[in-house]
Amino acid sequence: MASRKRILTGDTPTGPLHLGHYVGTLENRVKLQDKYETFIILADTHSLTTLAEDPHQIHNYALEVLRDNLAVGLDPEKVTFFLESDIPEIYELAAIFSMYVSQARALRNPTIKDEMKSRGMEEKFSLGFVNYPIYQAADILSVKGELVPVGEDQVPHLEQTREIARKINSLTGKNILPIPEALVGRVARLPGIDGSSKMSKSLGNAINLGDDEETVVKKVKGMYTDPTRLKATDPGHVEGNPVFTYLDSFAEDKKKVSEFKERYTRGDVGDVEVKEYLSKVLNKFLSPIRERRQKLANEAELAKILEAGRKKVAPLAADTLMRVRQALHLTD
Amino acid sequence: MASRKRILTGDTPTGPLHLGHYVGTLENRVKLQDKYETFIILADTHSLTTLAEDPHQIHNYALEVLRDNLAVGLDPEKVTFFLESDIPEIYELAAIFSMYVSQARALRNPTIKDEMKSRGMEEKFSLGFVNYPIYQAADILSVKGELVPVGEDQVPHLEQTREIARKINSLTGKNILPIPEALVGRVARLPGIDGSSKMSKSLGNAINLGDDEETVVKKVKGMYTDPTRLKATDPGHVEGNPVFTYLDSFAEDKKKVSEFKERYTRGDVGDVEVKEYLSKVLNKFLSPIRERRQKLANEAELAKILEAGRKKVAPLAADTLMRVRQALHLTD
Repeated sequence: MASRKRILTGDTPTGPLHLGHYVGTLENRVKLQDKYETFIILADTHSLTTLAEDPHQIHNYALEVLRDNLAVGLDPEKVTFFLESDIPEIYELAAIFSMYVSQARALRNPTIKDEMKSRGMEEKFSLGFVNYPIYQAADILSVKGELVPVGEDQVPHLEQTREIARKINSLTGKNILPIPEALVGRVARLPGIDGSSKMSKSLGNAINLGDDEETVVKKVKGMYTDPTRLKATDPGHVEGNPVFTYLDSFAEDKKKVSEFKERYTRGDVGDVEVKEYLSKVLNKFLSPIRERRQKLANEAELAKILEAGRKKVAPLAADTLMRVRQALHLTD
Repeated sequence: MASRKRILTGDTPTGPLHLGHYVGTLENRVKLQDKYETFIILADTHSLTTLAEDPHQIHNYALEVLRDNLAVGLDPEKVTFFLESDIPEIYELAAIFSMYVSQARALRNPTIKDEMKSRGMEEKFSLGFVNYPIYQAADILSVKGELVPVGEDQVPHLEQTREIARKINSLTGKNILPIPEALVGRVARLPGIDGSSKMSKSLGNAINLGDDEETVVKKVKGMYTDPTRLKATDPGHVEGNPVFTYLDSFAEDKKKVSEFKERYTRGDVGDVEVKEYLSKVLNKFLSPIRERRQKLANEAELAKILEAGRKKVAPLAADTLMRVRQALHLTD
């Protein structure tokens, strides 16, 4: 058991998780939990990068995200969940790391650039926003994470983490920090129900893991399909049609999906029928998730899981910090 | 006693303290220690803003700076000394604060601009360098410092601290953080022995509090005086002549200094004689400081003082962090 590699992954809690998160990371986490020693951080201080002016829901979001993780089948006996803000050592590590990253380098990060643009931040971005890849490096390195399951947009952040770890190791002549590797799984990107390329809470185009049956039916009914198709007898497009992307991702009966695709392409089925089927598929997929969620609705249980995580991570992070400080001679 | 206001001040340990520090802050600290509850932080992580590539001496510098503080007469029974890096809560506070300061605002800080220029940093400055007024805000607010003895160049940093405290208070509707006030004392600036306007370790023009008699004599012998004066019978200038600035600051016999000034102005005394007198004055001034330093040369004693400080500050900082987190609903 001791030789299992250690994974660090996590979420920034700014709202409930959705089907896009499931396909992108959660599914992968569930598979990996038996093979690796897994740590999942709820990076609640990161949430302030978008919610600084309205922070009051962050703790609730963190609990909700923990519920989502457990509901999809992550086992708190196998996986260590913890709140970033419970581990102050992470921030001291980040402070040290920030001395080894030039601002110019931090701003060259393409994901940072994209986010600035997409959020219309321009000159108004906070220091915390520029710093957050550094905090992420501290998140990963605090528990000496060796593997980090990532999506494409996170690769530049992981590269920053690797640079920092290499720098500290070379400066001190000691291999105190691991050089974490990306664990690129089947990290699919799910389109939104509005047809835009990415399902996203902030775009309001998501089906949440916590949505009830009725909500799912309603959201699927309103889904974007093939805009060139005016009636059921028009030949339709399956490519780029989110209804079929969802079916590909979540339907168990692949044969039935193939039949639907054929009928759709030759104009032999209406949107209504396909959507009714998709609703059924999604509600069937979400049903065990909903059941597990019901069982763990108790906040005290969630608090216990996070407290157990804090107890496990605190000494690890303290050890990492001590080693870094000692190697830099910041301490005896 | 409980109603005494609380002072937070400190040093960034990057080398030994010198006469400029004495006149600028240490003298003031000694006076204030009876009137206020004083905390003195050794901001060792800040030292990385200049010593990132060569951090190996930082802990020794921190001990040396503590020695300097004790040697000038600060009493560890009255004053709480602590290492910044012993209090990880400071960095978590700083991470939260950094979400409320735009990078543009941080870079508008005139002291930051000056330091960038004087250190020739241009585009190469680190994130940690941009962040350091935020760390300073966290230093001050972690112990709920109400008064901060400052020199002119620190006023912009204190203003940043005040802005952050006001922002957090207004956002949460609670007065969790004090709005610290500057305590502007007789904050003189001592010229260097080379005649440049500021005594500074990095300029190599300092007389250190730890210099021995011989070193003082040698440094004074080489001091810049009045460049327009070629021989002892030339009328000399007292204004802007560091030898006389030092005499004004450290000689007890003001009458004798006046006589020297008169003789110097009319060309009736040589540099050598004035310098010999200055050496005596400085060595007399430094003599009790040297004696106290001898008594506390023991590193174990210093470690004990810092550990006592850590024990006192840790719960204060944890309390501040908890209040901030609670008020922002980052925790239950």
